[in-house]
Amino acid sequence: MQLTKYTDYALRVLMFLAIQEDRTEKIQIQTIADKFGIPKNHLIKVVHRLGQEGFISTVKGKGGGIFLCRAPSTITVGQVVRRLEMTLNPVNCDEPMCCIKEVCLLKPVLNEAMEAFLTTLDNYSLSDITRNDRPLSNLLHTGGTENFFK
Amino acid sequence: MQLTKYTDYALRVLMFLAIQEDRTEKIQIQTIADKFGIPKNHLIKVVHRLGQEGFISTVKGKGGGIFLCRAPSTITVGQVVRRLEMTLNPVNCDEPMCCIKEVCLLKPVLNEAMEAFLTTLDNYSLSDITRNDRPLSNLLHTGGTENFFK
Repeated sequence: MQLTKYTDYALRVLMFLAIQEDRTEKIQIQTIADKFGIPKNHLIKVVHRLGQEGFISTVKGKGGGIFLCRAPSTITVGQVVRRLEMTLNPVNCDEPMCCIKEVCLLKPVLNEAMEAFLTTLDNYSLSDITRNDRPLSNLLHTGGTENFFK
Repeated sequence: MQLTKYTDYALRVLMFLAIQEDRTEKIQIQTIADKFGIPKNHLIKVVHRLGQEGFISTVKGKGGGIFLCRAPSTITVGQVVRRLEMTLNPVNCDEPMCCIKEVCLLKPVLNEAMEAFLTTLDNYSLSDITRNDRPLSNLLHTGGTENFFK
């Protein structure tokens, strides 16, 4: 059981944007793709969705790019996972249709476990997971080379 | 994020075996496959693994089949999920290799959430999720047609 790469990449994009010294700076998708070694076309879909969900804004054209449009402390990991994951149904009872579906006591147990998973993630904000912004910046070489020498 | 069909089917097999009136009765894989509408060849792999993990026993040859070799109260959903899931790593930091892996604070948060998921499942045994054995038996038509009229 694993989060989709889609959600994983979304969280990385948000972390990248959160550690910018100037968070209004427009960041190119290509820059993030290069840093994480992720194909740009994968990130384009993720970024589009993050925009739709109101986590980031996009400025088109020359000098454009993406930036975080909410404070990192107001975005929780739980919110991102809940909105980006394709499904949070722990099992698929419909394909093939499970004949015990109507009386199944396994499903509510799995749902309770999934809720425990998500509730844990609700406790952590983007701010919490980027509080070590200096080592993160160094590894991601953000904000120019001066970050190397911080 | 979803359990694999492999684990899902394993849980269904165990539930089916747990609700047998005579739990030493040998059940054919084909019978379980038919009841749940799952291809038999999928179940063969699952059953083989359940045997390796010591949840069930197999008797080969005529009159053979599978049966639960531990009391349902001693098997937890958590045990089954921990042993059957291909991965319980909430994200894959190695393919492509994530450059922030060494300092990442997201990973421990995701691990904590996964542990909350599994710990919840540890609280429920096979006995708990089949305590409604009568309606389950009726839907699965186990133990012959008399179950219809229980």
